[in-house]
Amino acid sequence: MYVEAAMDALRHAYQAMPPVRAMQVEVEGYQAPWLKLRAPLAANVNDKGTAFGGSLCSLMTIAGWGLLQMRLSLEDLRAEIYVADSQVRYLTPLRSQLQARARLRDDGEWAEFMLTLRRRGRARTQVLAQVDLDDGQAACTLEGRFVAIAVG
Amino acid sequence: MYVEAAMDALRHAYQAMPPVRAMQVEVEGYQAPWLKLRAPLAANVNDKGTAFGGSLCSLMTIAGWGLLQMRLSLEDLRAEIYVADSQVRYLTPLRSQLQARARLRDDGEWAEFMLTLRRRGRARTQVLAQVDLDDGQAACTLEGRFVAIAVG
Repeated sequence: MYVEAAMDALRHAYQAMPPVRAMQVEVEGYQAPWLKLRAPLAANVNDKGTAFGGSLCSLMTIAGWGLLQMRLSLEDLRAEIYVADSQVRYLTPLRSQLQARARLRDDGEWAEFMLTLRRRGRARTQVLAQVDLDDGQAACTLEGRFVAIAVG
Repeated sequence: MYVEAAMDALRHAYQAMPPVRAMQVEVEGYQAPWLKLRAPLAANVNDKGTAFGGSLCSLMTIAGWGLLQMRLSLEDLRAEIYVADSQVRYLTPLRSQLQARARLRDDGEWAEFMLTLRRRGRARTQVLAQVDLDDGQAACTLEGRFVAIAVG
């Protein structure tokens, strides 16, 4: 699949999930190694006028999920992707749009990940994600383990 | 403040947050040491027909946040509560209503937490939360550090 089609498929996948739709998540694009998403503050605000911790965690999680989904589409591989665990750090309150990005912890691991999935029907990998402040520093970070299980 | 008033205040606080409202979170009640919340699957479903990881993380986070909020209200203490970090484990896909509960890791710590907050204007504590499967086992767990900062 071409990258434009993979991005469209990802947008559709997000729109099909009610909680992601409620967060008004938009796919900004893929700029290797990063998949970038954004969401407006208004739909994701807490009692203090800053970004809601749950939305930050969700956005970083689906950025990681979407990164794998999109790269699998590019290889014409069909798999279900699950987050297995994550460590989240909330560093600085965010008072503007939520801009998230996710990458493999080791971007050189893609080939091995795809090979393992093809051979064993199952593969796991580590994702790093963060939501950026306006100055590019992180408002929060996520380190998570994701599992892909081949379908069909 | 009486416990009924504290629970009402908590319900209002949740309703005032758009992302929490979108998840259709309801406060089930406080049964020491647990604060219990629930949310319907339909508003929190992923592409696989199971509970969305981001919603699970959000629900456990606001259960912990709400537990502190509610106990502070009972003591007539005003503070802003932040989640500082969390470790989340997704154990089993959930195919029904999301039922979450949160408690202090050490329920005996409340007195010291309140005392520290009164004296220093700031206190931190560890929260455990989980979302239950129908058989009472955990679908996922969260261990998080929360900080309260006195207001006024």
